[in-house]
Amino acid sequence: MGKQPVIHVAGDRPDLEAAVREAGGRTGPLDEADGLVWLDGDPSKLPELPPSVRWVQLPSAGVEQWLRAGVVGDRPVFTSAVGAFGLPVAEHALALLLAAAKAIPRFARASSWEPDGRHRVRALEGATVAIVGAGGIGRALISLLAPFGAEVIAVTRRGRPVPGAARTLPADRTAEAWPAAHYVVVAAPATDGTRHIVGAHELAAMRADAWLVNVARGSLVDTDALVEALRSGSIAGAALDVTDPEPLPDGHPLWELALVTPHVATPPEAEARHFARRVRENVRRLAAGDELEGVVDPEGGY
Amino acid sequence: MGKQPVIHVAGDRPDLEAAVREAGGRTGPLDEADGLVWLDGDPSKLPELPPSVRWVQLPSAGVEQWLRAGVVGDRPVFTSAVGAFGLPVAEHALALLLAAAKAIPRFARASSWEPDGRHRVRALEGATVAIVGAGGIGRALISLLAPFGAEVIAVTRRGRPVPGAARTLPADRTAEAWPAAHYVVVAAPATDGTRHIVGAHELAAMRADAWLVNVARGSLVDTDALVEALRSGSIAGAALDVTDPEPLPDGHPLWELALVTPHVATPPEAEARHFARRVRENVRRLAAGDELEGVVDPEGGY
Repeated sequence: MGKQPVIHVAGDRPDLEAAVREAGGRTGPLDEADGLVWLDGDPSKLPELPPSVRWVQLPSAGVEQWLRAGVVGDRPVFTSAVGAFGLPVAEHALALLLAAAKAIPRFARASSWEPDGRHRVRALEGATVAIVGAGGIGRALISLLAPFGAEVIAVTRRGRPVPGAARTLPADRTAEAWPAAHYVVVAAPATDGTRHIVGAHELAAMRADAWLVNVARGSLVDTDALVEALRSGSIAGAALDVTDPEPLPDGHPLWELALVTPHVATPPEAEARHFARRVRENVRRLAAGDELEGVVDPEGGY
Repeated sequence: MGKQPVIHVAGDRPDLEAAVREAGGRTGPLDEADGLVWLDGDPSKLPELPPSVRWVQLPSAGVEQWLRAGVVGDRPVFTSAVGAFGLPVAEHALALLLAAAKAIPRFARASSWEPDGRHRVRALEGATVAIVGAGGIGRALISLLAPFGAEVIAVTRRGRPVPGAARTLPADRTAEAWPAAHYVVVAAPATDGTRHIVGAHELAAMRADAWLVNVARGSLVDTDALVEALRSGSIAGAALDVTDPEPLPDGHPLWELALVTPHVATPPEAEARHFARRVRENVRRLAAGDELEGVVDPEGGY
C-alpha cells in the first residue's frame, strides 16, 4: 500500500470526489496531483501536466480522438472508461434486439390494429445471437441474455472462450457467424482493424431474416452497403444506436429503413454512476500499486 | 402408473401427436379417448364428449369465454394453457419495458437526429418494477429481469413471497406498489376481481415518471382513465399489448398516446412449442395419475 494518492477532479463533480475519498484517496489541485480525472472529450483542452501526475482517467469508452491527437504516451498512464458502461450499453443493445424481435418499430409507427400481427413477432428463446466484440458490453449482454435460452456466438480477437457463449470465434473466423445468427450485435471498439467489419460481403452472408444491431461505433458498418441490403431485403432489419455519418442527416434513407436511436446507449445518470465506479476502482488500484482498469493501448488503437 | 392413455388431438397437429407419444400416450379417435386436446377457442364448437373422456386440454391461457359458456364442470377435468406461455409473454413484457426505458417509440417515429436524446433514456439497473399478478408470466419476467439489477415488487393474491422479488404484496396491499414503481407490469388473469385493477385512483397514485405495461387483458385497465392520465402527464407513458376495446379502433387516442402492439405477445412458433410442452406434461401426468397442470377453476374464474 503506497501513500494516499492526491487526485484532481477537473470539474464540479461531488460524486467523483466522493469516489476518490471512498477509495482511500484525497482530492487536491492539479500541481500536487498523482492522478487526474479529466471530463472533457476534447484532447486539445487537456492542459500541460505536472510531472507528479502518474495517471489520467479519460471520461469515455472510445478514445479514437485521443489517439489521433497523439496525447497518449507511456507516462502518465491513460485509462479510459472502456468496459465501464458495459451494462447500460448492453441494456440498450437488448432493447434494440427485443424491438427487432417484437416488431416494435412497425407497431410504434402504426395507427391501426394489425389483425395478423402475431406473425411479425419472434421469440428470442432458441434464437442465435452473434456478438461481435465480446468486451465489457458483450459480456454484459451475454449475462442479460442468459435467462432467455438464446444461443450466443461470441467473436473476440483471439477467440478465447467467453463465459456464457455457446461458441467463441477468433476474429479471423468471424465469417462463420454471419450465416448462423438471427441477430448480429456489433459491440467491438472502433479501430483501423474494425472499420467496415460489416460490409457488403458480410451482409450478403447473413440470413434473410437476420437483424443487425450496432451499439459500438458507426464506422464499423458500411452504411451504403447496409442501405442496399435493407432495400433489397437481403437482411430483415437494422437497429442502430450509432451511425456513419453521425449525426445521421435529415432525409437519410436509414430513417425509413432502420430503427435509429441517436447515440443514447449510456443515459447520463447511468454514465455518472458507472464512471464513478471506474474512478473509485482505479484510485484504489493506484493507491495499492495494482494495474489500472481500462489502460489505453495506443498500439491496439483502443 | 395407469394404462396407456388414449388422446384425441382435434386438429392436424403432428407436433402435438408427437408430444402425446413422447409422454407415453397414444393418439386415437374421440369415442375411445381418455383425453381430448382441443384447439378451437370457441366453446360452442366443442362436441358432446363421450363418458370415457376424463380430461380436456384447452388451447389458451385465458378461459373467460369457456367459463361464461358454462362448459366447465367437475368432470371431465379441463386444463388451460395458463402459465405455459409465461416465457414468450415475459419476453414481450420486457421488450415493452425496455422500449419505455429507452424511448424506442419516440425514436422509431423520428426522422431527425435528436442531439440531446440521451436525456430521454433511462437505465433499468436500479429501477423498481412492480409486477401485478406473479403467475407464470410474472415469474418468467422476474427471471428475465434478474441480471439487470432492478428491484421487483410482486403482487399476488395471497402475498406468499415470490422467489426473486425484493417484496411480495398481497392483493389487498396493492396500493403500496403504485407510488414505488418506475414500471408497473400488469400480468394478472382477467377475472371479476381484476377488472379495472388499474383505474383513475391507481393511475393518480403512480409516479409521474412511471410507465404502465399491460400484457394480460385489456379489461384490467380502465382505458378512459388511462387516456386521461396520459393526456394530463400524470404518468409518463403506457405500452400495451392488450386493449379495451380490442381490437383498438382506428382514431382511438391511445394510438397517439401509447405504444400499442396488437395482442402479439405469443408468437405462433413459440405458442406451438410451449403448448406442446404443456400437452406432453399433462399426458405424462394423466398416465401417472398425478394432478394436471393448469386445471381450470370455475370458482376462481381462471
